[in-house]
Amino acid sequence: MKSVGKQSIDFDNVYLASGSTAVGPLEGDGPLGQEFDKVFDDLYCGETSWEKAEQNLMKTAINSAIKKANINESDISFAFAGDLLNQTVTSNYVMRDFKTPFFGIYGACSTSMESLILASVFVDSKLGENVLIATSSHNGSAEKTYRYPTEYGGQKPQSATFTVTGAASAIISQKTSEIRITKATVGRVIDAGENNPNDMGSAMAPAAYETIKQHLIDFNTTPDEYDGIFTGDLSSIGSAVLKDLMKADGILLDKNYNDCGLLIYDLKKQPVFSGGSGCACAATVTFSHLKNKLLSGEYKKILVCATGALLNPIIVMQKESIPSIAHAVVLERV
Amino acid sequence: MKSVGKQSIDFDNVYLASGSTAVGPLEGDGPLGQEFDKVFDDLYCGETSWEKAEQNLMKTAINSAIKKANINESDISFAFAGDLLNQTVTSNYVMRDFKTPFFGIYGACSTSMESLILASVFVDSKLGENVLIATSSHNGSAEKTYRYPTEYGGQKPQSATFTVTGAASAIISQKTSEIRITKATVGRVIDAGENNPNDMGSAMAPAAYETIKQHLIDFNTTPDEYDGIFTGDLSSIGSAVLKDLMKADGILLDKNYNDCGLLIYDLKKQPVFSGGSGCACAATVTFSHLKNKLLSGEYKKILVCATGALLNPIIVMQKESIPSIAHAVVLERV
Repeated sequence: MKSVGKQSIDFDNVYLASGSTAVGPLEGDGPLGQEFDKVFDDLYCGETSWEKAEQNLMKTAINSAIKKANINESDISFAFAGDLLNQTVTSNYVMRDFKTPFFGIYGACSTSMESLILASVFVDSKLGENVLIATSSHNGSAEKTYRYPTEYGGQKPQSATFTVTGAASAIISQKTSEIRITKATVGRVIDAGENNPNDMGSAMAPAAYETIKQHLIDFNTTPDEYDGIFTGDLSSIGSAVLKDLMKADGILLDKNYNDCGLLIYDLKKQPVFSGGSGCACAATVTFSHLKNKLLSGEYKKILVCATGALLNPIIVMQKESIPSIAHAVVLERV
Repeated sequence: MKSVGKQSIDFDNVYLASGSTAVGPLEGDGPLGQEFDKVFDDLYCGETSWEKAEQNLMKTAINSAIKKANINESDISFAFAGDLLNQTVTSNYVMRDFKTPFFGIYGACSTSMESLILASVFVDSKLGENVLIATSSHNGSAEKTYRYPTEYGGQKPQSATFTVTGAASAIISQKTSEIRITKATVGRVIDAGENNPNDMGSAMAPAAYETIKQHLIDFNTTPDEYDGIFTGDLSSIGSAVLKDLMKADGILLDKNYNDCGLLIYDLKKQPVFSGGSGCACAATVTFSHLKNKLLSGEYKKILVCATGALLNPIIVMQKESIPSIAHAVVLERV
């Protein structure tokens, strides 16, 4: 393992031992519905509150990831997890049930790739054979935290995104498997002055742009190197902004680029405004659909750039703009 | 660097290049007042809101830490920061002003030691020569986030703790200095069933107990090895609980044990209930008073065990108990 350029890391021996996903009913009805490990047919996921539903999603994903990696809980050296709720309570309350040394993280919707980078550093420096990562979001708990309870039935502009109900977990390991984590670029906090919390795609696109551009510079490469480049949850609006920003630099993000928030839903048929968002968006798409494409050999090498808007509702009401961050990871078929 | 026992890490070459602190007026009037790098004489710290005041505290501490380490911002490879506000907005908004690749973390009041462990892993694996850590808390912003705005003048029971207004930052480096970071024990999430948010000391004491005990087991040592063992913010109540828990195991935490929340204030003269708390509590005491004792040679080796209560107000109103975590780090005079 070594650092590369200004913001990147080159890993030697880091593998994806398993990845598992659990989602809600709308995600199950979406284009990737068949690829998730567990689809709950009720938004409460058998629980009595949105918060408990989200905990159930994360717990389901973690237990499944451990099982699929064919290890026991005691084989896990460290865990990294985070989520969107105040004080990341989903992760904290779920981790009560696991005896694993735990690092809580917060990167908003970039959490999946932030945790993947940190876990890869721990695995590659041989601090642990297996490191667990997990993240989640729930439409009901996120709306309550960031905007209004969904029960109010508030209306939204078309530029808004729809928080994915779901969770993903993965076991990152020293042990060789079909998928290797080879490179990463760690994001910086970027504030482009956007201040509309109902258009987070536009707020996050500059962070994705900065991270992807730095990735290409640090590794002296071009987008063509990848079979696919995927942002986390820029939505139809943010994705277009990102493409424009790249184009102005002479870099074409075109046939091999997509956004997880556009893959997880059918925007023509499902009521999701400009696309999916939330910690679970990049996480569930990466550890189901993208993982499957790598396993099948359709993709040999992909770049996943998860994007996070680092606001809270109070600070936006205080007339601050919305800073963002994006972390990118390269996954390769061995 | 290698992992030791179940939850610990042994570092090879990790040094404290600098540590800096900024605090509010009450902390400046306390027993350690002379040891902080900057004391603001107004709780607003020259700003117009508690949130901006907290950002100013963190920014002041970071800029001072960079200056004291005799480096430039561009010499910093990575940064880790977290705080108590919803979605850790203090750290996120402060990091807009720095061009450093950034990992947001959340460990409640254990954040200082969580960030110190992660930074040490990055430094020891040679991913960066200098890694920055920062954390903060502000009495006004924390009360507003967790309880009621201080402007309401609500009353509190004596078991409550008082959130420290302050911030600390440090530069962790490969370059040798007088203070080495030698060992760490990463905490697990512990839930002892406590559910009184006005007595977080009792909720966190079991987490401190588990981490300190595991530390002693992992390194096959006793409390006597240390010139001082310091918990983060257990308060007079939680400290007594910790001592009792240790005593039941035949381990005496006595003359060399103290709590940062009891050191930072004069409990007889200052209106702080059962002691100080908040992310800044362990952080400002460690990177001022404890650092100074190491530099003077009075302490050769200390263990700092920062403690975090992982609640949010909603989940406590939903009748959940309060899980906690504690991360411990050994600092040694070279």
